[in-house]
Amino acid sequence: MNSFGEIFRLTTFGESHGVALGGVLDGCPAGIRLDVDFIRQELHRRSTGQHEYASQRQEADDIEWLSGLFEGRTTGAPIGFIIRNTDARTEDYETLKHVIRPGHADATYEAKYGIRDYRGGGRSSARETVIRVVAGAIAKLYLKEVYPNLRIEASAEIDEAKIEQARQEQDSVGGCVSCVISGLPAGLGEPVYDKLPARLAYAMLSINACRGFEIGKGFEAAKMRGTVHNQYHDGTLGGISTGEDICLRLAFKPTPSVGLPGRHDVCFVPRVPVIVEAMAALVLADMTIIGSGDRVRASHN
Amino acid sequence: MNSFGEIFRLTTFGESHGVALGGVLDGCPAGIRLDVDFIRQELHRRSTGQHEYASQRQEADDIEWLSGLFEGRTTGAPIGFIIRNTDARTEDYETLKHVIRPGHADATYEAKYGIRDYRGGGRSSARETVIRVVAGAIAKLYLKEVYPNLRIEASAEIDEAKIEQARQEQDSVGGCVSCVISGLPAGLGEPVYDKLPARLAYAMLSINACRGFEIGKGFEAAKMRGTVHNQYHDGTLGGISTGEDICLRLAFKPTPSVGLPGRHDVCFVPRVPVIVEAMAALVLADMTIIGSGDRVRASHN
Amino acid sequence: MNSFGEIFRLTTFGESHGVALGGVLDGCPAGIRLDVDFIRQELHRRSTGQHEYASQRQEADDIEWLSGLFEGRTTGAPIGFIIRNTDARTEDYETLKHVIRPGHADATYEAKYGIRDYRGGGRSSARETVIRVVAGAIAKLYLKEVYPNLRIEASAEIDEAKIEQARQEQDSVGGCVSCVISGLPAGLGEPVYDKLPARLAYAMLSINACRGFEIGKGFEAAKMRGTVHNQYHDGTLGGISTGEDICLRLAFKPTPSVGLPGRHDVCFVPRVPVIVEAMAALVLADMTIIGSGDRVRASHN
Amino acid sequence: MNSFGEIFRLTTFGESHGVALGGVLDGCPAGIRLDVDFIRQELHRRSTGQHEYASQRQEADDIEWLSGLFEGRTTGAPIGFIIRNTDARTEDYETLKHVIRPGHADATYEAKYGIRDYRGGGRSSARETVIRVVAGAIAKLYLKEVYPNLRIEASAEIDEAKIEQARQEQDSVGGCVSCVISGLPAGLGEPVYDKLPARLAYAMLSINACRGFEIGKGFEAAKMRGTVHNQYHDGTLGGISTGEDICLRLAFKPTPSVGLPGRHDVCFVPRVPVIVEAMAALVLADMTIIGSGDRVRASHN
Repeated sequence: MNSFGEIFRLTTFGESHGVALGGVLDGCPAGIRLDVDFIRQELHRRSTGQHEYASQRQEADDIEWLSGLFEGRTTGAPIGFIIRNTDARTEDYETLKHVIRPGHADATYEAKYGIRDYRGGGRSSARETVIRVVAGAIAKLYLKEVYPNLRIEASAEIDEAKIEQARQEQDSVGGCVSCVISGLPAGLGEPVYDKLPARLAYAMLSINACRGFEIGKGFEAAKMRGTVHNQYHDGTLGGISTGEDICLRLAFKPTPSVGLPGRHDVCFVPRVPVIVEAMAALVLADMTIIGSGDRVRASHN
Repeated sequence: MNSFGEIFRLTTFGESHGVALGGVLDGCPAGIRLDVDFIRQELHRRSTGQHEYASQRQEADDIEWLSGLFEGRTTGAPIGFIIRNTDARTEDYETLKHVIRPGHADATYEAKYGIRDYRGGGRSSARETVIRVVAGAIAKLYLKEVYPNLRIEASAEIDEAKIEQARQEQDSVGGCVSCVISGLPAGLGEPVYDKLPARLAYAMLSINACRGFEIGKGFEAAKMRGTVHNQYHDGTLGGISTGEDICLRLAFKPTPSVGLPGRHDVCFVPRVPVIVEAMAALVLADMTIIGSGDRVRASHN
Repeated sequence: MNSFGEIFRLTTFGESHGVALGGVLDGCPAGIRLDVDFIRQELHRRSTGQHEYASQRQEADDIEWLSGLFEGRTTGAPIGFIIRNTDARTEDYETLKHVIRPGHADATYEAKYGIRDYRGGGRSSARETVIRVVAGAIAKLYLKEVYPNLRIEASAEIDEAKIEQARQEQDSVGGCVSCVISGLPAGLGEPVYDKLPARLAYAMLSINACRGFEIGKGFEAAKMRGTVHNQYHDGTLGGISTGEDICLRLAFKPTPSVGLPGRHDVCFVPRVPVIVEAMAALVLADMTIIGSGDRVRASHN
Repeated sequence: MNSFGEIFRLTTFGESHGVALGGVLDGCPAGIRLDVDFIRQELHRRSTGQHEYASQRQEADDIEWLSGLFEGRTTGAPIGFIIRNTDARTEDYETLKHVIRPGHADATYEAKYGIRDYRGGGRSSARETVIRVVAGAIAKLYLKEVYPNLRIEASAEIDEAKIEQARQEQDSVGGCVSCVISGLPAGLGEPVYDKLPARLAYAMLSINACRGFEIGKGFEAAKMRGTVHNQYHDGTLGGISTGEDICLRLAFKPTPSVGLPGRHDVCFVPRVPVIVEAMAALVLADMTIIGSGDRVRASHN
């Protein structure tokens, strides 16, 4: 259950306090030029966020590419890569051994596995998303070849004054992220369980701290009359893209770590847009390949 | 992509204007007593809704059980069943042949498949949910054996005056549904992509017309300080259940069919709660079986 | 686990002594003309075998098509169908209640499920293959559109004298089936776990009573020198088709039902070739769609 | 398609001529003590074979464990590990650029992906099996906890004189491997497509160069009378284990590399048994977890 996607599929591993995090991107078509600069930029967006309010932790995030590439292009083989954890501080484990941190996943892990790696948040750390960003960047490179007009653009909805005040009071705040997918042609998505909205919701709610998801008019739609709502185009009908823009909006709860001076995210939300885009790209890439079988086509060779 | 779930898996088929709708429920453990009255009640809830505002269409919804049962119990074999469409009116096809109904999935189906069954909404009809309700009822029967204290209860949030006014103006309205899952023990869910919130969001957004999903404090959480949010228990941490109540809230857009006198849903939302419960039950059943492998256990025989 | 295939996926249900057997074929591309005569012929091949030695049981095998078709073509929606069991004889259950038939799956079902439907062989009956034949026929119709030169031809290897003698002695015999896949272009199959030979072996060993599988030179290859074997083309290299013929050979054990006068298969092997072809077609159809994602292609819309 | 298994699932990556090979073992239950010595022994068996005839290439095979372990035990998180390629010789690429080696997968890769990493065999190299052996060893450690009496033992069937003669003539030979699974309780396996024999065949034919598979009496069974075959117990009925021994026999073709002096495998078959055992263990581990849902059980917490 550490895989995402059916054919264009990302499998991830690693803990924030361990040796490294890693990913295996399987089902990525051959022949895509791996734009390393672009991937680095995407990691930079995640690392710094759009604003200075993001965590001051410096993450090197050097990617070690292990497989699936040749002369700068994907070969069709699984793309394996790792990112080492350079500032894991293993010396202070013992203090955590008997601590169940409120608002963290410590207790639920113990309930589930009967064992707890008390060195850190296990797989629940937000650090895991670094791997999603790398894979999402590759998905974007693939999608650019298939849909030249596609744009996936997310931005954080934040109130800077509120963040500043929270910082002074050693508190934390949540926030919203919106994402627009434009330039996608009509016909993508599956009619019943794998509706495009359903796959996108699944992807977004898999991001740490995500607590709400809206597509199109979202909760506002619930208050509308049909005659009014029919005037909007929300980008999918019957679960399938219409060719119009698809708009998402996501809510993130504040980090539970409060009352702490020094290094921690008062508000991690500015770092989230690139993760949201990555997850959207992974969904679209996978559904594109699955959708290849919608109609009869000539031999694929 | 007409299947839902990994092990406890529902596969469905059928169109609202065709011969029948059907389902195959695979991976359902053996030995569960099939409470036929309970299943009939659940179908009745879907058919009538909580209120008179629901569609006046009378659906017989007689289930023809085809397999997987013996002496009133599940055998471990796939449970196949169909529900015939008794009031499909095939005589008026020709009028629909060249009509792309606004707000319906007609155009997206054509873009996707290059062919359109113009007799009706194909797989996009809400009639398809009748199969989900049957399977969800079986999932509930299974869950009752595993978690005796589990309750899954959904209700529609509707404004009756607003519905009545919309009816008079031949318009339609959307609405919200909330769902509480209580009595689930801690430890259910997977840490990364298959977080319980992610699986639930996927399930809910697969329901027709769903446009928004909240878990716990939802969008309100985005406005909260960490010190405030930490005081709430939202039922999952790190994607895994905590043993506290899990609260969902869902937004449904109004049906696009407006300006029509006679038989149609002014507001279908009162019929949705049993569908929401069914989808939640399918998620919990599947994750329970998947979670069986969390720890080493003695031989299963 | 009653599904076969990843995207082009067959899900089946039903017991030989129950109401009906059925199948849901999902992921079948839209626009394929459903040649009903061809499907009937395929069922006839299964029903009678190539020889008179096959079971004298008369199976009507009328297919009730429930969904996924419009004006004689597939629509992209799941194709649901059932075949009713016309000669299930339910009156003699009680005699079977306390009998564990040697060589049958009765005891293993009981060990697995803790419950046994003593009316018959549950899902283990060979009658289940009728659904495979229908789905396989549709797969063949799809493959014909993609690979015009493809031929999948299986035949039974039987010794008629041996069968005749076994009949007289109220015994049974097994036999071999060979299958040649020709006209498949190079490039189909996956390099590691989903090698074409691996997927074919999986498909064939899922047929009742199959005990051996060979591809290319099979067990003979184990005795060859490299210089000799290199002279043969066995149709796959590294798990991927080469464009040369792929030859399979399969062994089936004799039916355990012996010492019985009257209606039973002395040798069911003459009825198996059409099932072998069906399973091969299901594998090729699924791998074709999965292989659509091998390289970057222009937008599928 | 570089994953094997549904829940207890191995995903692999890496090329023999690249930086490293790696694996992610997901779904492995928490709490298993990772016996590193045992894993090293298993790798040693693969590296040297039972006999001196195996390749003289020295592989260090040092495993770098990256995740999923804590204090020597599995945590339930995915176990990521890599093995670096220490003797990849990248300097002689250019000579291979325009060579399609007969009997190798070069041409099929090019047909499939439209691109070829001419540095080596891509994913088709037998070196990939090193990852299977590591994962298989962990599967064995898990199975030992569930089935204390389970034994999985494979051995190569080789003719030493024949190998010696082939070596002198710079030729190669294939061979057979047999495998006995004993101590498995009744009730494991699925009745239709995921029969235990089908899953095992799938696993074995995914091993490079495997060309034949037998279970129980295999091809001999095809020649037997029912009265004779009924006297044998072949370990599965209806696809489900009976509690009796399950015997497999596998044929491997000779390596296509011939006429080469110096370092190459005259016969790689002595190195195969540990791979066969690994694949069998992966199948049994996965089916055990899947089978957890066969019957209703009390809450898993």
